[in-house]
Amino acid sequence: MANKKLKPDPANLDVEQTTVMQGGMPKALGIRVTSLTRRKVTGEMPVTPMHMNVNGRVNGGAIMAFADVLGALGAVANRPKGYRGGTIESKTNFFAAGIGPVLSAVSIPLHVGRTTSVWQTTIKNADGSMVAMVTQTQISVPAKD
Amino acid sequence: MANKKLKPDPANLDVEQTTVMQGGMPKALGIRVTSLTRRKVTGEMPVTPMHMNVNGRVNGGAIMAFADVLGALGAVANRPKGYRGGTIESKTNFFAAGIGPVLSAVSIPLHVGRTTSVWQTTIKNADGSMVAMVTQTQISVPAKD
Amino acid sequence: MANKKLKPDPANLDVEQTTVMQGGMPKALGIRVTSLTRRKVTGEMPVTPMHMNVNGRVNGGAIMAFADVLGALGAVANRPKGYRGGTIESKTNFFAAGIGPVLSAVSIPLHVGRTTSVWQTTIKNADGSMVAMVTQTQISVPAKD
Amino acid sequence: MANKKLKPDPANLDVEQTTVMQGGMPKALGIRVTSLTRRKVTGEMPVTPMHMNVNGRVNGGAIMAFADVLGALGAVANRPKGYRGGTIESKTNFFAAGIGPVLSAVSIPLHVGRTTSVWQTTIKNADGSMVAMVTQTQISVPAKD
Repeated sequence: MANKKLKPDPANLDVEQTTVMQGGMPKALGIRVTSLTRRKVTGEMPVTPMHMNVNGRVNGGAIMAFADVLGALGAVANRPKGYRGGTIESKTNFFAAGIGPVLSAVSIPLHVGRTTSVWQTTIKNADGSMVAMVTQTQISVPAKD
Repeated sequence: MANKKLKPDPANLDVEQTTVMQGGMPKALGIRVTSLTRRKVTGEMPVTPMHMNVNGRVNGGAIMAFADVLGALGAVANRPKGYRGGTIESKTNFFAAGIGPVLSAVSIPLHVGRTTSVWQTTIKNADGSMVAMVTQTQISVPAKD
Repeated sequence: MANKKLKPDPANLDVEQTTVMQGGMPKALGIRVTSLTRRKVTGEMPVTPMHMNVNGRVNGGAIMAFADVLGALGAVANRPKGYRGGTIESKTNFFAAGIGPVLSAVSIPLHVGRTTSVWQTTIKNADGSMVAMVTQTQISVPAKD
Repeated sequence: MANKKLKPDPANLDVEQTTVMQGGMPKALGIRVTSLTRRKVTGEMPVTPMHMNVNGRVNGGAIMAFADVLGALGAVANRPKGYRGGTIESKTNFFAAGIGPVLSAVSIPLHVGRTTSVWQTTIKNADGSMVAMVTQTQISVPAKD
């Protein structure tokens, strides 16, 4: 279901203006988006006491929330004007402890179709070790529906 | 791979004492555990501006973090002394907008084995509508490994 | 995204006539559908040498294929005339060895919306032990798109 | 949990001898393994009427079964002597219709630890279009447990 007619809204590439980044969670978690195109989104999240379990490792929920922000930004960047949507499913595999002091993430689309897009986000520690991989499906539907 | 010999550590049923609840994220998100047994964990999470996207709906990451706390508590409750572990994978399906004003969740084990347990957490709005379902695998290994 | 206007096509409740059951895999695997409504699908799959690994246990792929048939039937049963679709994602957790001699499965919808439906299928051995749980998202779009 | 002491059994790299390939499903589906190392497994599956839905597209269950064979081979290739295991969870995203005439797949490990390994398998049509991506967790435990 390739999107043959509808073009993405250019305004959706403005990171600061996207509704995604104006939500409470990106701010609370200190998530920063370092680049945004329709084929790649990158970002960083600091590791503070709020992000950590008692063993000093980053909480799994914080990692999934981090990835969700980047995947959502990618989906929004590909969304035509007059469309809305959201995450409909998300799958995470955890590989190693998140230790920081900053986590970095790269999100790329595995598929961009008319109704759905699928984003794969890789989260790494500062030393380059892979912490987790998140695969998500984002849906887009006409806003008037 | 049923656990025939090892018994869960009774101390792991003390919600306040578990390492899970002493982490930063449960506190930051205001998660409260309302009951904890080895076969069922229930909890609540208030919906404040920190939890919300700009459309007033609960952020997907906050929902996944909420479920992760409950699933982890269930896994810990079944863990023998001298064992450690964590979430190795988590799958979420989102069904309806989280609106609160409080989200409630129930986590039950689909499987409790020697090495892994699988927890299914259902998150609902105050009106009973189902927001999301999360299925997670938790691993347990000897702490000395 | 509740479907307020479109009604499911009654013809889609005719098991033998559905395109799902006319495919090669249900026949090859010997899958039989024992009941079909818009809120529940049940079926059986015999365990023959074709289904088994060398240890005598049912192959995971056969189990996932079995569940996919039932989830697809449920999605089709809720699909309006003039719509088409398919499985867009599927998640399986395996709990115990499939030993048969017949596996039974029950598939129920966790969500039925306008664009997507989510089906959860539980597969059991003849002795009632749970072999696997499969959660799938099925999409529906206008056939002319 | 890196495996520091145990070495993979070299015999597990012998495709024809592995128990995986002696099972009924790889034969029934006509799956051929074209290369096998501990870091990459490749294979092919022909598209015959048995593999197809009535619309001529490859059945999702056949695709998941194909990927499961390759992921299992990769896990076995990394397994020490005296260990056994299997797939504990599998997640598939479907992107485009499988049309063949032959599907090819590449499976690589995202993680190889002492107790679990995670395999990502990409399935493509003969024209190179991506049909599906499968991410699986395989477990290994001592055979005497």
